[in-house]
Amino acid sequence: MQKKINPSSRRKFIKKSATLTLATGSILTLPQTNFANQSPSISQNNSINYIGPKDGYTPQIGTLVSMMNWMRDTVLSSVQGMSIKDLDYLHDKNSNSIGAMLWHLAATERFYQINTLEGKKWGDWEKKDDKEFSTAMGLGNKGRKKIKGNNLDFYLEKLNRVREHSLKELANQDDEWLLKIDPNWMWREPTNNYCKWFHVVEHESNHNGQIKFIKSRIVS
Amino acid sequence: MQKKINPSSRRKFIKKSATLTLATGSILTLPQTNFANQSPSISQNNSINYIGPKDGYTPQIGTLVSMMNWMRDTVLSSVQGMSIKDLDYLHDKNSNSIGAMLWHLAATERFYQINTLEGKKWGDWEKKDDKEFSTAMGLGNKGRKKIKGNNLDFYLEKLNRVREHSLKELANQDDEWLLKIDPNWMWREPTNNYCKWFHVVEHESNHNGQIKFIKSRIVS
Repeated sequence: MQKKINPSSRRKFIKKSATLTLATGSILTLPQTNFANQSPSISQNNSINYIGPKDGYTPQIGTLVSMMNWMRDTVLSSVQGMSIKDLDYLHDKNSNSIGAMLWHLAATERFYQINTLEGKKWGDWEKKDDKEFSTAMGLGNKGRKKIKGNNLDFYLEKLNRVREHSLKELANQDDEWLLKIDPNWMWREPTNNYCKWFHVVEHESNHNGQIKFIKSRIVS
Repeated sequence: MQKKINPSSRRKFIKKSATLTLATGSILTLPQTNFANQSPSISQNNSINYIGPKDGYTPQIGTLVSMMNWMRDTVLSSVQGMSIKDLDYLHDKNSNSIGAMLWHLAATERFYQINTLEGKKWGDWEKKDDKEFSTAMGLGNKGRKKIKGNNLDFYLEKLNRVREHSLKELANQDDEWLLKIDPNWMWREPTNNYCKWFHVVEHESNHNGQIKFIKSRIVS
């Protein structure tokens, strides 16, 4: 799994459709990856572009996992090969750096893990997690001040470590758990675990849109 | 359905967690909506924050539809109340306006409809669709030049009309169709219909990240 989402192990093949011009966030920047270690006999439902039930997980959890993998692959393709300078770049005084956003994605996933898998209230983090992730979770001024000078591997290690734990723990849950509503959740409408985890996924896309916007404006 | 995603029919309740500061794309901007016309006896799985199988659709299609609804609700909350000036605002010479991005989302969904539901090749659009959606699909210079001066309702009408058609047509499909791989699709790895439709959803989040970034920088 980790090999698949490690950008250093793949090359990108971007095919451009003649009917479309390139736009930030356009469909043309989407995964068309080639994994160096991929077996030619890989079954179709192991394709990164196969969203749906997945071996080792209940049907809806497998579908969620396939989305998590696809989305992560897309984010990693945006930041592939970035230097510390790129990762630290602040577009304006209110921008978050790309590095801070990557850490923020790991933080979000970690906190949702603790909430949904360990049943703890939002904010009830152990010291270790609070120390590692709260600044990145909050971004803003504190993030701009504290998150800098790290190379890409620093952020990838956090993303990979947190993701590995998600995949392991999600394999131990079932669809009934995924659909279960948390009566104490802070959003106004009844919210289930699937909604929280779908948010973890789409939130990566939200920041990927910003990462691409900023990336194309980095002043070298 | 349309009432639910019409931002004019709802108020927003944003609860802020003391442990988090507000960040563009943070979890704090997520749907905590109250629908004016909502019955108090609404069942939990009709909650906008319930992701999962849905009446009127096969299980995986229902899950997809619940994601489509949730994501659209989130995008619409970002643009609620925007003036023509806001919708036309260009942050820099390479930016897309928020109005153009909204049209772009409708265009993307329309083209994926034609491809996945009508079985046509990408780019094989009828004149009517090409005329309405190709400029918005491409964004860029042509989009900046041609897409301006429209009010929010102009874009919402397109988004709602296209979405209504998606929901009607998806109700006529089943999970087997959703999981089916398109052997002719332009991405390198085998891609199924669920992947294409998941992309339609996460692509809204990608642009929502940019919409929020630009929105917070509009010079009044």
